[in-house]
Amino acid sequence: MRFLATTLRASIAPLGEERLIATIRRWLGNASPASPFGIGDDCAVLGPSRGRQLITVDPVIHGIHFDSRTTPVAAGAKLFKRNLSDIAAMGGRPRAAVVALALDGRVSRAWLAGFYRGLAAESRRHGVPIVGGDLARLPGRFVATLTLVGDAPARILTRKGARPGDRIYVTGELGRSLSTGHHLRFRPRLAEGAWLSRRREVRAMMDVSDGLAKDLRALAPEGSEPLVDARALPRRRGATAREALCDGEDYELVFAVGGRTPTGVLEGAWRRAFPRTRLTCIGRFGRAGDSAPDLLRLGKLRGYEHLR
Amino acid sequence: MRFLATTLRASIAPLGEERLIATIRRWLGNASPASPFGIGDDCAVLGPSRGRQLITVDPVIHGIHFDSRTTPVAAGAKLFKRNLSDIAAMGGRPRAAVVALALDGRVSRAWLAGFYRGLAAESRRHGVPIVGGDLARLPGRFVATLTLVGDAPARILTRKGARPGDRIYVTGELGRSLSTGHHLRFRPRLAEGAWLSRRREVRAMMDVSDGLAKDLRALAPEGSEPLVDARALPRRRGATAREALCDGEDYELVFAVGGRTPTGVLEGAWRRAFPRTRLTCIGRFGRAGDSAPDLLRLGKLRGYEHLR
Repeated sequence: MRFLATTLRASIAPLGEERLIATIRRWLGNASPASPFGIGDDCAVLGPSRGRQLITVDPVIHGIHFDSRTTPVAAGAKLFKRNLSDIAAMGGRPRAAVVALALDGRVSRAWLAGFYRGLAAESRRHGVPIVGGDLARLPGRFVATLTLVGDAPARILTRKGARPGDRIYVTGELGRSLSTGHHLRFRPRLAEGAWLSRRREVRAMMDVSDGLAKDLRALAPEGSEPLVDARALPRRRGATAREALCDGEDYELVFAVGGRTPTGVLEGAWRRAFPRTRLTCIGRFGRAGDSAPDLLRLGKLRGYEHLR
Repeated sequence: MRFLATTLRASIAPLGEERLIATIRRWLGNASPASPFGIGDDCAVLGPSRGRQLITVDPVIHGIHFDSRTTPVAAGAKLFKRNLSDIAAMGGRPRAAVVALALDGRVSRAWLAGFYRGLAAESRRHGVPIVGGDLARLPGRFVATLTLVGDAPARILTRKGARPGDRIYVTGELGRSLSTGHHLRFRPRLAEGAWLSRRREVRAMMDVSDGLAKDLRALAPEGSEPLVDARALPRRRGATAREALCDGEDYELVFAVGGRTPTGVLEGAWRRAFPRTRLTCIGRFGRAGDSAPDLLRLGKLRGYEHLR
C-alpha cells in the first residue's frame, strides 16, 4: 500500500484536523474509550494506580524503523510493541497509551487507516486503551511517538543489580531481525517479564533492542565484563554469532541470575511456564582476574547506534 | 544561536547515543532524578497516585512551533509549557514528564544544551521531574514530543458540561501571540485552572490554543452556538477582534459558568485570588431562538488548522 497518496483526495490533507481526529476515533473503535477517559479533551483521564507505575516512550519513524515495503498495519503494531517490550523489560503490566503523530499532509488516508488498525489490534490484544494523542504537521516526514504507562510489579527489575559471577540468560533467538521480519512480527515478552520479576534469583533485566553486545554493557556490574559463549548464543535461522550479538531489534529479554543459584531450578520452572520459548544461558559477568579462554569478551563489539 | 552546527565537532553526531544521553543528564541536572526513577532504564518509575490521573502529549517542531530566531531555551520551555497548559485546562497538577527527541545529527550541541536548559528550568519551576525519554535520528528535522502525567483534581473540568445560557469567560488576553512573543513567554495557568476546578459554578473548561473561535466550538453544548461580544474581547496590545478570535497559541483558559450564578460572586473571588490576571466575560452560549443582534456568531470563523 502506498505511503503517500497519489491524489489530493486520497490524502489526509482535505480532512483537516477535526475531521481527521473524528476519523482516527472511528479507526480505533473500542481501542479508544470515550472522552474524558479517551481522545477529545485537553488531557486523558486515567484511574488511580494502587502501586508504583512505569512510563516509557518510543517512536517509529518512516525510513528508520519501517519503510515503504512495510505494511501500515505492521508499522502501527511495531510502534505499540516496541513500547510494550520496555514495560516487559521491567516486569510490568501495560495500562494505557497516548500517540503523537507528526506527519505530512500527503500521507495516504488508506495507509494511515492501516497504521491505526495496527495500533488498535495491539491495544485490544493486550487490553491497553489508546486514551489520547496529538496531530502535528511535519512536511516530508512521518514520526509517530507512543507513550505507554504501566503498573510496576511488586519487585521492579531494573538494569542495575547484577553482580560479578552472575549468569546471563536470554529469551528466544537473536540476530537478523530486519531481514527475517522479526522486528515487525515479534511478540513483546510481557508474560515472561512479569514471571521473571517474581523470581528472586533474577537480579537485573532489560530488553535486547540495540543488539546484545551493546545492551549487555548496560546490565554489567561496575568493573565487570560480560563473558559470552559464542557457541551457546541462540541464533535466529541464518544468523552468525556476530549478527546475534550486534544486530538490533531483537526485543528479547536478557537478565542476570545469582551465581550461586542451582542452574536447573530456574530453567525447569521456565520450561513448565513457557514450554515453547527458548531460554539460554549464554555466559556470565566476569569476576576480577576471571580466566575464560573459551568465552568472548564483549568490550569491543558495538550494537546499533541511534545517532550515526 | 545557530540551530545546525557549522562544524562536525560542534554537532551532536560525534557524541553517539550513549554519550549524548549522559550529556543530556548533565544538562538536566536535578531536573531529572536518578535511575530507576529517571533516565537510564527501559522505563521510568513513578510512585502510586492516590486519585485519578491526567495524561497529555504535545510536540514542538522546528519550523512549526518555533524557528531559527527562537532561542533554544525558549523552544525547550515552550515544549514543557504547552503540555502544562493542557493539565491546567482540566484543573490538574503536573507530576512527571518524558521527552522523545527525533533529530538530525547536525544539530548544534550548544543549541541542544540550551533546549534542555529551557526544559529543566520549567521542570524546576513547577517541581515536575523529567523522568525519561528517547532519542532517534531524523534527517533534516527536529521533533521534540513531551508527555506529561498529572494528578487530576477532585472535580475534573472537561470540555463537556456547558449548557445553553452559560456565560463564557476567558483569562488574560488574546491575539497576536506569535508577533508579540507571547507563544514563548506565556505562563501556563496552573494555579488558575486548579482554583476554577473547585468553583461549582464553572461547568466546562479548556485552554485556548488553536484560537478562541475554533476552541469555543468544542466547549459549546450540543445545538448551541457561542455568542461573543466582540467589544468585550480582552485583546493583546495591537490585536484586532479577529486576531483575538482566530490567532492560535494564547494558552489562556476559557470556561463556561452556570447561567443563574450572580455575575459578581465568581468575579470578586477571582480578583482576590488572582489580582493581576484579567478575567473577562466575553459572551454566552446561545439558547434556541436566542436573539442577540449585538453579539458575534462564531460559526463561520476558523482558528488554526494543524494539518493544512
